[in-house]
Amino acid sequence: MTAYEIITKKKRNAELSTDEINWITAGYTSGSIPDHQMSALLMAICFSSLSERETVDLTMAMAHSGEMLRPDTGGFNVDKHSTGGVGDKVTLICAPIAAACGVFVPKMSGRGLGHTGGTIDKLGSIAGFRTSLSYDEFIRNVRKAGLAVSGQTENLVPADKKIYALRNVTATVDSIPLICSSIMSKKLACGADGIVLDVKVGDGAFMKDLKSAEDLAELMVRVGKRAGKKCSAVLTNMDKPLGRTVGNSLETIEAIEALKGNSAGDLHEVAVTLAAEMIFTAGERSREECRSMAENAIRSGSALERLQKMIELQGGDPRVTEDSSLFPQAKRRAEIFAPESGYINGISCEETGLISMKLGAGRLAKDLPIDYSAGIVFDKTVGDKVCRGDRLAVLYTSSDCDLESIAEDMKGVFKYSESNDIPKEKNVIKILKGY
Amino acid sequence: MTAYEIITKKKRNAELSTDEINWITAGYTSGSIPDHQMSALLMAICFSSLSERETVDLTMAMAHSGEMLRPDTGGFNVDKHSTGGVGDKVTLICAPIAAACGVFVPKMSGRGLGHTGGTIDKLGSIAGFRTSLSYDEFIRNVRKAGLAVSGQTENLVPADKKIYALRNVTATVDSIPLICSSIMSKKLACGADGIVLDVKVGDGAFMKDLKSAEDLAELMVRVGKRAGKKCSAVLTNMDKPLGRTVGNSLETIEAIEALKGNSAGDLHEVAVTLAAEMIFTAGERSREECRSMAENAIRSGSALERLQKMIELQGGDPRVTEDSSLFPQAKRRAEIFAPESGYINGISCEETGLISMKLGAGRLAKDLPIDYSAGIVFDKTVGDKVCRGDRLAVLYTSSDCDLESIAEDMKGVFKYSESNDIPKEKNVIKILKGY
Repeated sequence: MTAYEIITKKKRNAELSTDEINWITAGYTSGSIPDHQMSALLMAICFSSLSERETVDLTMAMAHSGEMLRPDTGGFNVDKHSTGGVGDKVTLICAPIAAACGVFVPKMSGRGLGHTGGTIDKLGSIAGFRTSLSYDEFIRNVRKAGLAVSGQTENLVPADKKIYALRNVTATVDSIPLICSSIMSKKLACGADGIVLDVKVGDGAFMKDLKSAEDLAELMVRVGKRAGKKCSAVLTNMDKPLGRTVGNSLETIEAIEALKGNSAGDLHEVAVTLAAEMIFTAGERSREECRSMAENAIRSGSALERLQKMIELQGGDPRVTEDSSLFPQAKRRAEIFAPESGYINGISCEETGLISMKLGAGRLAKDLPIDYSAGIVFDKTVGDKVCRGDRLAVLYTSSDCDLESIAEDMKGVFKYSESNDIPKEKNVIKILKGY
Repeated sequence: MTAYEIITKKKRNAELSTDEINWITAGYTSGSIPDHQMSALLMAICFSSLSERETVDLTMAMAHSGEMLRPDTGGFNVDKHSTGGVGDKVTLICAPIAAACGVFVPKMSGRGLGHTGGTIDKLGSIAGFRTSLSYDEFIRNVRKAGLAVSGQTENLVPADKKIYALRNVTATVDSIPLICSSIMSKKLACGADGIVLDVKVGDGAFMKDLKSAEDLAELMVRVGKRAGKKCSAVLTNMDKPLGRTVGNSLETIEAIEALKGNSAGDLHEVAVTLAAEMIFTAGERSREECRSMAENAIRSGSALERLQKMIELQGGDPRVTEDSSLFPQAKRRAEIFAPESGYINGISCEETGLISMKLGAGRLAKDLPIDYSAGIVFDKTVGDKVCRGDRLAVLYTSSDCDLESIAEDMKGVFKYSESNDIPKEKNVIKILKGY
């Protein structure tokens, strides 16, 4: 078996055998197969694609390239993954809800790159909160609080780390089987019994169109099933930022409010749907029951209690859930006003993300510091009627960025129309059932 | 401009600009663009291809990555290239003919890899023959003999050396625009006024089917024209080994015999056609005139004189043209006899090449020594009637290879049929005119 033969096969659109996929994944991870052969294979995969069987094999080979965790919580463990979007603080809401409803949520999360941080960066905005737990402490905390969120252990899926870094510089990112294997290998290595996937669709998502999002979601669910997991996927809208805030502390505050029942309609609907799917994967109840349990966990305050408990166990100050002034406060702010009257018929995710970056809420490179206080709070959203001079949003930052020019750019984020004939987008587009 | 953007463009089947092609070729040659990005681009080119304009740009960028030679011979300089086949000793025949007819042939040749050596390896079988001339001596010899054959100078087309090595390990060899740019960049850097291309078609050629061979030939001729060269291509048959011999000294002897008018029909036709094209590119005569001049150069002995003169100037013993016993003699031989009666309807090029390698006539890696005496002489060819026990071929070697088992394998090289309804293949399939 040689890398040359494997590349040639895939170039000719033939199916690779399980042995070939295992051999090349192990060889690339160990360094015996060089970058230039792997990148040629990845590009050939972008053109020729992989069959479902090949994708399963690649996902398994990648998962097994490092440690395979078995979260010994004594209950049914559920993991959740989002393909990423602007204002996506859903984990902070659905994980405590699911925990309150009796499933365990041992959530390992990577640091975010780009417009805002990942879930652990959002939690990192809570003073004292430790985001790097030992695996023992992590599992102990899940047993106590029902959930824990921690950074990934060192030796998790080294194949994915290496392949992802290579795809990132060789323009081989946008292949559905490669995206699937990257996401699912990490989920499988984390060892949960159930996996719920939030696949974002729209301008602000990696998947711009419904067809690709559905293809990815279906493939991931099938791969999860083949690997013996309970698996479910929800397609959710990302044509505008989710909820009303973007930025680490701002999003954490918004998530806490959502757990108190005070959240924007889109965020509530997405978070409750995902929480219900997480409870549903345990296999004991109908979707309808799971949904009403999730709603009840908000109403009763039991979900918020879970979040408070988790914050306390990880060294954070649980009083932040009652007093948002305990979060890092921005040193500077700028208000954005409507330059004309009309209806808002669009908020650009891409531009919002860019502005969030410029304010300091995201990081351009790994291990760079983040301004937890930085971000955006929207007063108005898509469909709202506005009059000239109404406040649309407030920008926050503690950095010495050029706030005046960023505020000027922020005006371009909103699109207007004269009439209110704006098509109402569904927040939850589809739940993939039957797998 | 970034490599990532360029790869993405080509992956999406968009046309790269001249600037982008120049930038990436220069960057890869200098080392600022890494192998893994170049191999991703090469694979994307294999799928998305290159336009004629892009191919011209790539060819020019590669040619200009090193020295651009200007052979100052005082006359019209013609270069010749073959895409490679089994038993291909055509240069040794057509170059002296062309020289005898008044054009200059400054021929730089690479060392061969595979079943036999290249032209300089064949000439290397002549005792004393120097295959590495200084450029000054090379040109001086062309002025005196009308032709010279020498190894390539060090700094010729470094971009091709690097890209070819990468293509060779990343399964990105079989792209017509990439093959064209590799061949033509070297030809352009050598600086001849006319370029004649022998594009082999068939089982024993790189181009297995007529369509790909025609596409490659047309593209190379167009690129040559765009670069201001007189350019011509001939498609020739490579469904069976060319002529009657394979191996370095054996092929040189056969070429000498061909210059005396004693050659197999296929070899004569191919060599005279190519020689006529070489004379034709000078632009002074019709194809018919060029062809009869080429035939006359054999009949009169003037072509053989040119070869003798070249051998003498490069330090070889010119008496080899009269006495083949001066060539290295094989220490061992094995005769192959027909196991059945019938008509030979095929001689496998691939298997012939493999046997030639095993006898020691080729090299598996650069700079390995070669057994000049090793090779095969065919007594029978395709279309011949044979009776059981007739001698079909003789194998020669001076190495300690397992001659008995190789001789056994050699029997499988011949294919038989009971009747003589073997379709007569054309030796010269097509001459591309009109460019």
